[in-house]
Amino acid sequence: MNKYVIGVDYGTLSGRALIADARTGEEIASAVYEYPHAVMDKTLADGTPLGPDWALQDPQDYLDVLSHTVPEIIKKSGISPVDIIGIGTDFTACTVMPVKKDGTPMCFLQEFKNRPHAYAKLWKHHAAQDKANRLNEIAASHGEAWLNNYGGKISSEWTIPKIWQIAEEDPEMYDSMDRFIEAADWIIWQLCGKETRNSCTAGYKEIWNKKTGFPPDEFFHALSPKLTHVVDEKLSRHIIPLGEKAGEITPEAATLTGLRPGTAVAIGNVDAHVCVPAVGIDGPFKMLAIMGTSTCHIMMGTEEHQVPGMCGVVEDGVMPGFFGYEAGQSCVGDHFAWFIENCVPAAYYEEAQKQNKNIYQYLSEKMEKLKPGESGLLALDWWNGNRSVLVDVDLTGMMLGMTLQTKPEEIYRALIEATAYGTRMIIENYRENGVPVNEFYASGGISQKDPLIMQIYSDIISMPVKIAGSEQGPALGSAIFASVAAGEEAGGYDSIFEAAGAMGRIRDRIYNPIPKNVEVYNKLFNEYRVLHDYFGRGTNDVMKRLKDLKNKVMFS
Amino acid sequence: MNKYVIGVDYGTLSGRALIADARTGEEIASAVYEYPHAVMDKTLADGTPLGPDWALQDPQDYLDVLSHTVPEIIKKSGISPVDIIGIGTDFTACTVMPVKKDGTPMCFLQEFKNRPHAYAKLWKHHAAQDKANRLNEIAASHGEAWLNNYGGKISSEWTIPKIWQIAEEDPEMYDSMDRFIEAADWIIWQLCGKETRNSCTAGYKEIWNKKTGFPPDEFFHALSPKLTHVVDEKLSRHIIPLGEKAGEITPEAATLTGLRPGTAVAIGNVDAHVCVPAVGIDGPFKMLAIMGTSTCHIMMGTEEHQVPGMCGVVEDGVMPGFFGYEAGQSCVGDHFAWFIENCVPAAYYEEAQKQNKNIYQYLSEKMEKLKPGESGLLALDWWNGNRSVLVDVDLTGMMLGMTLQTKPEEIYRALIEATAYGTRMIIENYRENGVPVNEFYASGGISQKDPLIMQIYSDIISMPVKIAGSEQGPALGSAIFASVAAGEEAGGYDSIFEAAGAMGRIRDRIYNPIPKNVEVYNKLFNEYRVLHDYFGRGTNDVMKRLKDLKNKVMFS
Repeated sequence: MNKYVIGVDYGTLSGRALIADARTGEEIASAVYEYPHAVMDKTLADGTPLGPDWALQDPQDYLDVLSHTVPEIIKKSGISPVDIIGIGTDFTACTVMPVKKDGTPMCFLQEFKNRPHAYAKLWKHHAAQDKANRLNEIAASHGEAWLNNYGGKISSEWTIPKIWQIAEEDPEMYDSMDRFIEAADWIIWQLCGKETRNSCTAGYKEIWNKKTGFPPDEFFHALSPKLTHVVDEKLSRHIIPLGEKAGEITPEAATLTGLRPGTAVAIGNVDAHVCVPAVGIDGPFKMLAIMGTSTCHIMMGTEEHQVPGMCGVVEDGVMPGFFGYEAGQSCVGDHFAWFIENCVPAAYYEEAQKQNKNIYQYLSEKMEKLKPGESGLLALDWWNGNRSVLVDVDLTGMMLGMTLQTKPEEIYRALIEATAYGTRMIIENYRENGVPVNEFYASGGISQKDPLIMQIYSDIISMPVKIAGSEQGPALGSAIFASVAAGEEAGGYDSIFEAAGAMGRIRDRIYNPIPKNVEVYNKLFNEYRVLHDYFGRGTNDVMKRLKDLKNKVMFS
Repeated sequence: MNKYVIGVDYGTLSGRALIADARTGEEIASAVYEYPHAVMDKTLADGTPLGPDWALQDPQDYLDVLSHTVPEIIKKSGISPVDIIGIGTDFTACTVMPVKKDGTPMCFLQEFKNRPHAYAKLWKHHAAQDKANRLNEIAASHGEAWLNNYGGKISSEWTIPKIWQIAEEDPEMYDSMDRFIEAADWIIWQLCGKETRNSCTAGYKEIWNKKTGFPPDEFFHALSPKLTHVVDEKLSRHIIPLGEKAGEITPEAATLTGLRPGTAVAIGNVDAHVCVPAVGIDGPFKMLAIMGTSTCHIMMGTEEHQVPGMCGVVEDGVMPGFFGYEAGQSCVGDHFAWFIENCVPAAYYEEAQKQNKNIYQYLSEKMEKLKPGESGLLALDWWNGNRSVLVDVDLTGMMLGMTLQTKPEEIYRALIEATAYGTRMIIENYRENGVPVNEFYASGGISQKDPLIMQIYSDIISMPVKIAGSEQGPALGSAIFASVAAGEEAGGYDSIFEAAGAMGRIRDRIYNPIPKNVEVYNKLFNEYRVLHDYFGRGTNDVMKRLKDLKNKVMFS
């Protein structure tokens, strides 16, 4: 009798559930539920206004995903809950919220309903930037060694700046809340009735390290006396590696989801990191690029190297026993969308329409005819700053080589190539710092939809590019972890490595580097690298001075 | 009784005649005639194919301009030929042609009709680039001092490379032709029946210098033995300063034009240089920028300075007694046209149409709302190489500062600003080399049509910008020289300076620099200058390497 597992992927605007075979990973059915409150970035639902750069969510939406999608896929698949042996979830991160000690979100309480700080702060809540800046200054001046595990900088998107903002702006809220918890862990609490904390978000977002734990209380005191005991008072020192079982479905969760009480629940996970087993990666030095509006690069290593410019290195941060390395590019699909919206001439739209093609397809066909190097163009992919390896949000885009003959498709291709050079910089940066990168996988929308882009990536990084076999990488990854939480005896697996090998998959078509193209792109990458360092490492800080000037004239 | 003068301006595709008051310059009537043969760049009229980069014209078209436009303006104006005291002309340059000793173009002869080298080589005939390269090498290796009068480089557009091409590719033509002459001087020959040679084209295009004459025969011998006596055999050592009278209308020319025999004819002139008196410039250190698809900067000085990167310095090259300096930007209006054609999104066209505006107007209105520095963008205006001060056709465009918020009008404004920084580089280069630039005038299409661009120029060069009062600058300039050829006794002027002061004019509206904008643009110009030198003076020759690579992959 086949057994099945469920994976639930919580994105920025919706949640998606998938039911899969617990041994083979075969996908049986899936369902999506859009968050009714979406992202609150102007006001709360009751009209209470929010400041600039806020981004909140209502955790009721997360529960509603469970109550809508899980019963739906059970019904669609025709599978009996008796044969569903586990559930796993993944979440955007760092999406984090204040709750009472029984797990009730502060925003569920009548008296705090209209208080912005009572809600979940979404990953892209950027209103704690001043806190992040002060934190980084203090950490640097204290010579905190952990800072180098995060490429030298803590982001305003992460836990400590966000809780600090509450402590400073709404001290009453800070005092009333018992716990401050990642949504990734909170949803697990709702399923199995007890609080757990996963090693992935703890490591990447909360400055936790498996060997050295959290920064000392003195450090938090230096931020603000109110934060002195923040770890013990609001967070937790009990961190559980990925791949463990968190608990079992409670009777309440069974009512909510239609699953049987006692069904295994996996420890919480993060939407990018959880994709790794979904492509079958089961060991170190295999990089997965999750390519969407931005790109996240996840890889496991066998040692802790402090590689400059990465987003973080965390033991057990991807799979137990390995060091999870994360790097990123803050703007990939967003580049292409910017170009399409702002730079494609009317004549191209007309011609595309005539040929009954969408504009991406039309441009792709024109681009495909171009040989590498033919446009004479070269760009730096910094339209939204540089996350890795320069970690500098104040950098901006650059393109050169334009002539009166330059065509839109050449510019478009140059932008695509620029993002691939950016990925190659990340790969070479790892290698130069003692971390090999031996294989390259891609998942996410771009990898699924755009063969030309994938070929360009292969030619530029000079490695085969393997493509995720599932279009629902995170949900499948969560299902794989669910199979491990259930264990072999129940019909799943005892090891995430074994489960990844059996349930994860790639497409048959692998993009292999074309030697002639590699030769040209090696030359172009050398040029990219010189300009990358010239503009990005302080030789000519013109981009920052222009941004300063822009800010000055805008407010003068 | 009022007296009148005629100016005829020969452009690339048409000729335009103007009749004006000989004392005040008031424009009475004008007429245009388009060349029936236009530019022959693929085949001759009979289908004889041309090589790449050829550009020829048929001089019959030049005669047809006279026979069509001059009678038309006489008729339109109602002025009697008795009261028309002079005619002046200006031409594109270097547009040059082989003729027999009576002035008959070789292409008018039946036996040479189907021979490409028999026709006028238009200024933009670029098929002698290999000759120009060899000429420059030889001149540099001989240490020829005159080379520095041309910014260190002779262009393939000029006389010697063009006649060398005939000598090498069609030696029979070379032997049969008696003279090789600028169209500017040939048209005067047709009007007054004798060959004259003007100091402007001789100086700027033929390597003639008032003090030292032509390069020695040994130099020409080094190019090719066939060219050893080229000056004496095909050109002329008798060079006449601008502002002189060439002769008088012959009976044949009177029949052609409807003018009276005996009417004064001015020495030939060039379309850019002739504009100087038309804006009333009558002395040194006042720069005129003629702004169209490209920009030409003409200024007079009192001494011969060898300023690096200019196009030429020629005694009597603009007005007699002064040194005429010429510099240029190879791509100005062409930048903007490239942008409009390739980078303006469909949504902008739709919105412009809705508002019943053309796209330039629509973009202008959006641009006008931007403050200097607000876009955060900076560009190098090298889409078509850099003519001054780097003299390098292999440079290409660059832009930086783009973000996901960057809008098309910001890019457009950055391109405009880049051309203004390019002009400022030219101005500062003169100043740094001992040639003051005290005033700035603009003529040509852009100066007439675009107030915003003119304000940006004023803010960036930090000088008032005075705008030509006539939309027909070259034709008016030619008419002014016609008045001087006729002389005061006949109702004109004895001095070009006096005539320029009285007949030339600027608009009432002068664009004055806005101090707040100047302050911002000074900062941006400093950034431009650093990048200009980084990419343009050899620190990082990435643009040239990309061009090389492009050529390699295109033909591999």
